[in-house]
Amino acid sequence: MWQGLLSSFNMATPLITFSSDFGTREHYVGAVKGVLLSTNPDVQIVDLFHDVPSHDILAGAFSVAGSCPLFPSGTIHLVVVDPGVGSSRRGLIASTEKHLYVAPDNGVLSLIFEREPVSRVVSIEAEHYYRQPVSSTFHGRDIFAPVAAWLSRGVDLTKFGPEITDHRRLSLPPLRRLETGGLQGLVLHIDKFGNVITNFRAADLKSLPAMDRPFRLQVGDLVIEDFVKCYEESPEGRPFLILGSGGYLEVAALKQSAGQILNVRRGSRLVLLFE
Amino acid sequence: MWQGLLSSFNMATPLITFSSDFGTREHYVGAVKGVLLSTNPDVQIVDLFHDVPSHDILAGAFSVAGSCPLFPSGTIHLVVVDPGVGSSRRGLIASTEKHLYVAPDNGVLSLIFEREPVSRVVSIEAEHYYRQPVSSTFHGRDIFAPVAAWLSRGVDLTKFGPEITDHRRLSLPPLRRLETGGLQGLVLHIDKFGNVITNFRAADLKSLPAMDRPFRLQVGDLVIEDFVKCYEESPEGRPFLILGSGGYLEVAALKQSAGQILNVRRGSRLVLLFE
Amino acid sequence: MWQGLLSSFNMATPLITFSSDFGTREHYVGAVKGVLLSTNPDVQIVDLFHDVPSHDILAGAFSVAGSCPLFPSGTIHLVVVDPGVGSSRRGLIASTEKHLYVAPDNGVLSLIFEREPVSRVVSIEAEHYYRQPVSSTFHGRDIFAPVAAWLSRGVDLTKFGPEITDHRRLSLPPLRRLETGGLQGLVLHIDKFGNVITNFRAADLKSLPAMDRPFRLQVGDLVIEDFVKCYEESPEGRPFLILGSGGYLEVAALKQSAGQILNVRRGSRLVLLFE
Repeated sequence: MWQGLLSSFNMATPLITFSSDFGTREHYVGAVKGVLLSTNPDVQIVDLFHDVPSHDILAGAFSVAGSCPLFPSGTIHLVVVDPGVGSSRRGLIASTEKHLYVAPDNGVLSLIFEREPVSRVVSIEAEHYYRQPVSSTFHGRDIFAPVAAWLSRGVDLTKFGPEITDHRRLSLPPLRRLETGGLQGLVLHIDKFGNVITNFRAADLKSLPAMDRPFRLQVGDLVIEDFVKCYEESPEGRPFLILGSGGYLEVAALKQSAGQILNVRRGSRLVLLFE
Repeated sequence: MWQGLLSSFNMATPLITFSSDFGTREHYVGAVKGVLLSTNPDVQIVDLFHDVPSHDILAGAFSVAGSCPLFPSGTIHLVVVDPGVGSSRRGLIASTEKHLYVAPDNGVLSLIFEREPVSRVVSIEAEHYYRQPVSSTFHGRDIFAPVAAWLSRGVDLTKFGPEITDHRRLSLPPLRRLETGGLQGLVLHIDKFGNVITNFRAADLKSLPAMDRPFRLQVGDLVIEDFVKCYEESPEGRPFLILGSGGYLEVAALKQSAGQILNVRRGSRLVLLFE
Repeated sequence: MWQGLLSSFNMATPLITFSSDFGTREHYVGAVKGVLLSTNPDVQIVDLFHDVPSHDILAGAFSVAGSCPLFPSGTIHLVVVDPGVGSSRRGLIASTEKHLYVAPDNGVLSLIFEREPVSRVVSIEAEHYYRQPVSSTFHGRDIFAPVAAWLSRGVDLTKFGPEITDHRRLSLPPLRRLETGGLQGLVLHIDKFGNVITNFRAADLKSLPAMDRPFRLQVGDLVIEDFVKCYEESPEGRPFLILGSGGYLEVAALKQSAGQILNVRRGSRLVLLFE
């Protein structure tokens, strides 16, 4: 099936998306793009996000899962959130039915693999594809960018190293049934708008018999009862529950930051209460 | 005339600019790009700005007006500053002589229509062009992106819904003649450099007989007298008047933030005084 | 030799990188891109960085040097960090063996010229290439963008003005031998991750006989002794020395900001101590 993708590469402009925690104050993003284009001048680079908090693998994983699956078949996704750069952590190429991912082996691809089943994972070891000399602090430029560019030129992923199966997964704490009957989850992400994204998923909730009954969300001392279908249904400043665009239950507040109103941060505990 | 634009689409790479308040911390920008490229793999996406303050329609309108008119004929401008997402607010496609705009109907296109007379406005209603299922919180991904991409593939704007004329306009307070003889305006925008952009326009000022006489700008208790042609003419730290690049009268200060020196914010009142 | 580059322009998609201190809150970046694409619709624009601190020429120079050399031969680099806009400062086109640079004559190209010897520098004076009318506050849009776009269409750099040799260089204080035997340098840059980049270069250090002996770095009252090859070798929170990806000696701290731990800023003095 991957052969089909490769031939689609050969027919059209190859597409590489680029996501990182590099910010846009310095040269890091530009350096990676320079290496991509020097290795394959025909590639089209698409910026996804570069302002993930520094070294925040979970935030990177969350944002990769929310954007990468939407790209056309054959897209190569380059993801560099890499706090362990220069250490013994491996580099990965992973193929799914539609896409190739190039990233450090630190869990940043964990959430995407829940959405797009991974078919093969290769540990990047073929040093002749690297930019030389390889620095110990910028593998985005020296290893991941040239590998992504060579992939876009049609080099098969098996040429870059041995297949592996023990790549790292982030272990998100699972939802937990409380003795009181509630279901305990947590804050997965707080976005730029202050929306509080939980790890309760629509799919999870539907499978619970309790979902036939009304539910409320307990956040510290606060209990949120309103469940709305769109932001505007709720009075300004009062937090409410909504099914977010990523399939997670969210807490939002009209034109305000629910995160600030609730005074929560990522990892804060939440409890779904059923009548 | 629009037929001419469509045929220019067919000849060259279609161009879609993308502006939003999504920031670049998360997946929102990337998700929109994925849908654009999945719907039309031949499109070239150009980022304009994504760090407009959240939900700030006026700031979005200001920045759209400052950049979109400069693009080649046939460019499609996708603008997603959308605090009313999921509510009953409509989505729009608007055509001007040179460009197509896709945006929520909330006034974010108001200022561009002052520069590029709008020829037709369509309310987006043809759901078969949407990405399904349509979320209630991310119409940028589910409605506006696919519509922009289908437009770039040559679908006529009339296919997306009925023509309307009652799209929303922002009502900026007009300049006001004071009994004292002054002219009252306001701070329209404060930019990244701290330049204070007013709603006094060169064109407005020239039409006033008073412009033959010298003028000063009153900002609270402060009166600014210097009118310079370039930043460097003025001593460091002292605010001065200058005709800005967007055609508005601005207050600036050499290598400093005039906004901080004047202690103003958007909407603060200003008075032009004539001798 | 430049003729070879020009013919490579004619064969492929011309590439213009774009770097600035414009931020992405407003229309400034988009306005420049609009002019580039209106002047040459075939150009591919690549964003390098736009969040350099306002008016910070040295930060711009540092980031240009870290990214521009990595691009393919024939790339045009547009750099707009321009505190002197509208003054008598000149605009430049500079050619090196591989690249063309378009920038204000304020030193922002100084560090790149240390890496890529400059072959010719032209003062931009041919007003018929400008966008008219030329504002006094936005030469990025009105002068530099059209010049870069006309270059990408194959216009020879000599058409834009006379050759000059007295373009401005930033004068970084050189390393200084202290009587105590130490070598005094300074903090050149602190990056998004808090890494403290010094002006001690690997090449400089190697040429010193003292490098055969161990060295430590004195920062105020603190002396840093650990020199590691990768970030992970060091205990969390303890600053260490590392050879950075740009060839400079850096102080870093595992998953923390070395800049905050050391309480330094750009320009802070540092002393290399030898045993």
